[in-house]
Amino acid sequence: MRVTALAGGTGAAKLIRGLAAILPPSHLTVVVNTGDDARIWGLHVSPDLDSVTYALAGRLDIARGWGLHDETFNCLDAMAHLGAETWFNLGDRDLATHLFRTERLTAGEPLSAVTAELARRQGVAALILPMSDDPVRTRILTSDLPGASDGWLDFQEYFVREKANVAVIDIAYAGAGNARPAPGVVDAIAGADVVVVCPSNPVTSIGPILAVPGLVTALHDTRARVIGVSPIVGDAPVSGPAGALMRARGLPVSPLGVAQAYGGWLDSLVVDTRDATLAPALRDLGIAPVVVDIIMTDHVREVALASVVLDGAGS
Amino acid sequence: MRVTALAGGTGAAKLIRGLAAILPPSHLTVVVNTGDDARIWGLHVSPDLDSVTYALAGRLDIARGWGLHDETFNCLDAMAHLGAETWFNLGDRDLATHLFRTERLTAGEPLSAVTAELARRQGVAALILPMSDDPVRTRILTSDLPGASDGWLDFQEYFVREKANVAVIDIAYAGAGNARPAPGVVDAIAGADVVVVCPSNPVTSIGPILAVPGLVTALHDTRARVIGVSPIVGDAPVSGPAGALMRARGLPVSPLGVAQAYGGWLDSLVVDTRDATLAPALRDLGIAPVVVDIIMTDHVREVALASVVLDGAGS
Repeated sequence: MRVTALAGGTGAAKLIRGLAAILPPSHLTVVVNTGDDARIWGLHVSPDLDSVTYALAGRLDIARGWGLHDETFNCLDAMAHLGAETWFNLGDRDLATHLFRTERLTAGEPLSAVTAELARRQGVAALILPMSDDPVRTRILTSDLPGASDGWLDFQEYFVREKANVAVIDIAYAGAGNARPAPGVVDAIAGADVVVVCPSNPVTSIGPILAVPGLVTALHDTRARVIGVSPIVGDAPVSGPAGALMRARGLPVSPLGVAQAYGGWLDSLVVDTRDATLAPALRDLGIAPVVVDIIMTDHVREVALASVVLDGAGS
Repeated sequence: MRVTALAGGTGAAKLIRGLAAILPPSHLTVVVNTGDDARIWGLHVSPDLDSVTYALAGRLDIARGWGLHDETFNCLDAMAHLGAETWFNLGDRDLATHLFRTERLTAGEPLSAVTAELARRQGVAALILPMSDDPVRTRILTSDLPGASDGWLDFQEYFVREKANVAVIDIAYAGAGNARPAPGVVDAIAGADVVVVCPSNPVTSIGPILAVPGLVTALHDTRARVIGVSPIVGDAPVSGPAGALMRARGLPVSPLGVAQAYGGWLDSLVVDTRDATLAPALRDLGIAPVVVDIIMTDHVREVALASVVLDGAGS
C-alpha cells in the first residue's frame, strides 16, 4: 500500500511516526508545508520539513513537539549577548540543519534536493517532499500591532514572536499563485493508494499546500482514497491557533469545518469519539466518518491511529 | 599617547590585552589581518578580527588562544552527524558572531561597519579596524596534496585542515592588488604617536596587511615611532608555522628575518633576552633593539611587555 501524507505541524509529525512504524519506508511519501518557512539570522528555516524529518529520524524532541532532543541553546544565548533578535528558538544542533540547507540553497540547489539530502544523511528512507521549491509564505493580517508596517505578519512572527496572541483578520499565501508543485508531488498524490491528510491546522499547515496550483486538482483526480484526521475535537483544536485561523477563514471550528475546508475531494475523516454525533452530518457531506480516540499521547497511540487511518482508507 | 597596533593571530591578542590594560580605550586602534578570513558552512568567519575583539571583551579562551571561553561544540557535532565538513572548529557561542556578521555583509554592509557594531555590542571601546573592506585571501602553494586542484590552499585549509603539515612553496595574497585600506586605517597609522607591530607571523598575519596598497607607504610616512615585537625567539617561532612560511619567502627564521620583512619603516624591534647577541646586527639595519623576556605566559606578562613596547617606542 503506497501512502502519501500531507503534513505540517506537531500533530502531523506524530501521525507520520505512526505511519512509519507500519509501512515500509519506500511506501511512504510525505508532502510537507513550507508556508511557514522563515529567514532567521540569515538562515533558511523550514520548521515543518524539519519536524517531519527529525520525527522519521528518531531525533525529534517529542515533548516539545519541535527541534531536536538533547538540545542546547548556547548560540541563542550568545545572540542575546549581542543584542540580536532571539524570539525564534534555534537550538545549537538544529542550527546545523539550517546552515546545511542555507548553504546549498544559496548555491542554487532546489529545496526538494536539499530536503532529500538532509533526509538521506539522517538515515530517513521515506520520501519527504516540500510542497514546492518556489517560495510560498503564509502571512497573517492583524490590526493589533499598529507598529507593524502594513498589518501583515510573517507566520513565524505571528506564531512564535506574538505567540498567536493577536486578532487574525485574514490569511494570505504569498507567492502561491506562481508556485509550482515540487518534483514528485503530483505523482505522489496521483500514484498513491491512500492519501492521508494529517491532523494539521487546515488553514496554515494544509492550506498552503492546497494553495499551490495543481494540488487540489491532483487530490480531486487521484484514484487514491483520501482520508483526513481532524485536528479539532469538539470546538477546539488539539493544539495551536487553528481556532482563530479557521474563524478568520469563515470555517466553523469543528470537525465539520475541517470537512468543509477539504470539501470536494476528501473521502473520509477520522474524528474523535467525543464528536461521534457529527457522523451523520459528515455523511451528508459525502465524507465517510471514522470515529476513534484520536489523541496521540504516546508512540503506541501514534501507531494505533495510523493503523485506524489505513484501515479506514481501505474500508 | 595614541597607539595603533597591527595585529593577527594569538600572540597579537595577548599583546593587545596588555596594551588595553595600560591605554584609555579611545587611544587604542587595532588594524587587523583579514587575509585568513574564510567561508565556513556559508558563514563569513574572520578569525583574527574575532580574536582581537574577544580578547578586548574579556571573552577570549586564553588557554586555547581562539574562540570563546565556556564554549560548546554541539552544532559541530550535529554537522558531523550530517556528514558535513567539520575540520574548522566553530563553537556554538562563536557561531552567533559569524551569523551576525554574515547576515549584515549579505545585506551590503562593509566589514568595517559590522566589525565596529560587533565590538560595540560586546562592550569594546577601542577601535578595531579590518585592514580592508575588500576581500584579500592568503593562499598557500604546496606540492604535497596532489588531489588539490592547482596546489593552492586557502589559508585555513593549510593551517587548520592540514595542520600546517605540508611543504610551503609560495604564499599569495589574492585580491590584495585591488584592495583599498578600510576607512580609518591610513589615518590611524598617520595620526598615531606609536605604531606597534604585534608579535604575529610576518608572512600570513602582518604580510596581508602590508600587501594592501598604501599601507607600507603609510608606515614609511607616519611620524609615529614604529616598534615591533619579534614572533621569533632564536630560530623558531613562539607558536605556529611562521618558520616554514618565512623560509618560503626567503626570510631567515630569526628576529633578523622579522627585521628584514619590515625593513625600511621599522624603527625598533623588541627581541627576547635569548637573542641579545643580535642587537648590533639590528642596529646595523637601522633598527633600535629592545631586549627583554617577550614570552607572555599570563596577563601580568602581557601588561609588562606592552609597557616595555610603549617605553621602547618613546626612547
